[in-house]
Amino acid sequence: MEHPFDTACALTRTGDGRFGGQAPAAYWNMAGPFGGTTAAVLLRAALADQPEGIEPVALTVNYCAPLVRGAITIGALTVRAGKSVRHVNVEMQQEGGCVATASAVLASRRDTWAHQPAAMPDVPAPEAVPEWPTDGRLPWLQRYEFRFVRGPWRPQTQAHATPQSAHSTLWVADRPRRPLDFLSLAALCDVFFVRAFHVRGHMVPAGTVTMTVHFHASAAELAAHGDAPLLGTVDAHTFTRNFGDQIAQLWSRQGRLLATTTQMTWFKE
Amino acid sequence: MEHPFDTACALTRTGDGRFGGQAPAAYWNMAGPFGGTTAAVLLRAALADQPEGIEPVALTVNYCAPLVRGAITIGALTVRAGKSVRHVNVEMQQEGGCVATASAVLASRRDTWAHQPAAMPDVPAPEAVPEWPTDGRLPWLQRYEFRFVRGPWRPQTQAHATPQSAHSTLWVADRPRRPLDFLSLAALCDVFFVRAFHVRGHMVPAGTVTMTVHFHASAAELAAHGDAPLLGTVDAHTFTRNFGDQIAQLWSRQGRLLATTTQMTWFKE
Repeated sequence: MEHPFDTACALTRTGDGRFGGQAPAAYWNMAGPFGGTTAAVLLRAALADQPEGIEPVALTVNYCAPLVRGAITIGALTVRAGKSVRHVNVEMQQEGGCVATASAVLASRRDTWAHQPAAMPDVPAPEAVPEWPTDGRLPWLQRYEFRFVRGPWRPQTQAHATPQSAHSTLWVADRPRRPLDFLSLAALCDVFFVRAFHVRGHMVPAGTVTMTVHFHASAAELAAHGDAPLLGTVDAHTFTRNFGDQIAQLWSRQGRLLATTTQMTWFKE
Repeated sequence: MEHPFDTACALTRTGDGRFGGQAPAAYWNMAGPFGGTTAAVLLRAALADQPEGIEPVALTVNYCAPLVRGAITIGALTVRAGKSVRHVNVEMQQEGGCVATASAVLASRRDTWAHQPAAMPDVPAPEAVPEWPTDGRLPWLQRYEFRFVRGPWRPQTQAHATPQSAHSTLWVADRPRRPLDFLSLAALCDVFFVRAFHVRGHMVPAGTVTMTVHFHASAAELAAHGDAPLLGTVDAHTFTRNFGDQIAQLWSRQGRLLATTTQMTWFKE
């Protein structure tokens, strides 16, 4: 049976140079699907017609309107192809209206001098951290294993009197497990709950308006990672005037930084 | 006399719905102009025909090819206009080819619950920090005051044997001084030197391929800031396979976070 993530990222060619797909019911969130699968399917379209060996360097996804159930159409355009770096613009439409855009920087990357100043925090192994129960929750939550090491989501009956930390550390994996690739890594960058919820202790109307992902690993390194959980570390700098930011890192179990990601989230209050 | 930054951001309407400008000689870098002015002029085009009161929330600029001296043309398209949030795609061309693209998230922002968990480091006042000499250097360096508090740029005769810190803290301002606005704030997000230079202690061929800026202040707050220096804090997570990342924060003297920014920089080694 196909993994629900692969179903969510499935694209067919429409004959006019574009791609067709379906808004993924298996990843439904409150209004529309989880933003991670939207990012992944946009990246898939950006990578579809590129030369062999091209890998993603950066992806910015702008969430323009909530998706509805049903068909999606995606167009991808390589706006500039340099010797090693390629720039691709992508747009997702539903019923003729733009629902999401993305820009991707792709490159033919080679081994160079390398150095990782950032260090993964010292945390218990994923097996030692209980899984956060997702049964009966929103569909997209059931598609991931969440194992909170620090900063779990504990909704309160009323908002905290003083703001709490925006930080969380958690092991996360596809559920059921699935070998890591660039698409699932892009999606995992959006699994962190809205930081304003953690800070306030309760939920308010909110949604990601833009997410940027920077990729720091090769296809071979992701394949070697397999289906093991990733460690996610996430925090926020500030919340003001309807928007809050988020910055997160995704690490392999061995402490290798696989991706970093930032986003701006709209909130109403 | 017009400030060179305003000259760099000057746009005229071309009559076909696009804008015309000039690659700014006053901000020239090694190959093409400083990326900050490119970001600023793209943001200017994105904001040009928007309703009163619209302010930037996020901007992603993709540097597709080095600019050459002479004319630039910019097209801006509002791909989605919601009740309070608007998404705009922008493209800069030279001689018919795409040299840069941008996506901007704009919004009509209101006062809400606000909270800034990030704290500005405790540093000496800008007046107490000597200005880094820029006379005789590249034009763009002469357009800014740099006052390094930590992690100054000190080129070595050969690369460090062991990687040095990627962190810098510095006061920075337009030179000559200019009242802060969204355009100059966007440009200031790109003033940090390539982190790989600091880590290695010497320069290698390098250039920003993509920069994302998140805006955390209102037009009124920027106006109140005036032409005072901003504190910049910058660091990197990792360098691998031709690309290194960068994350930076820009603070007002009072410790208010005005913008956060991330970028991916290509390097050859």
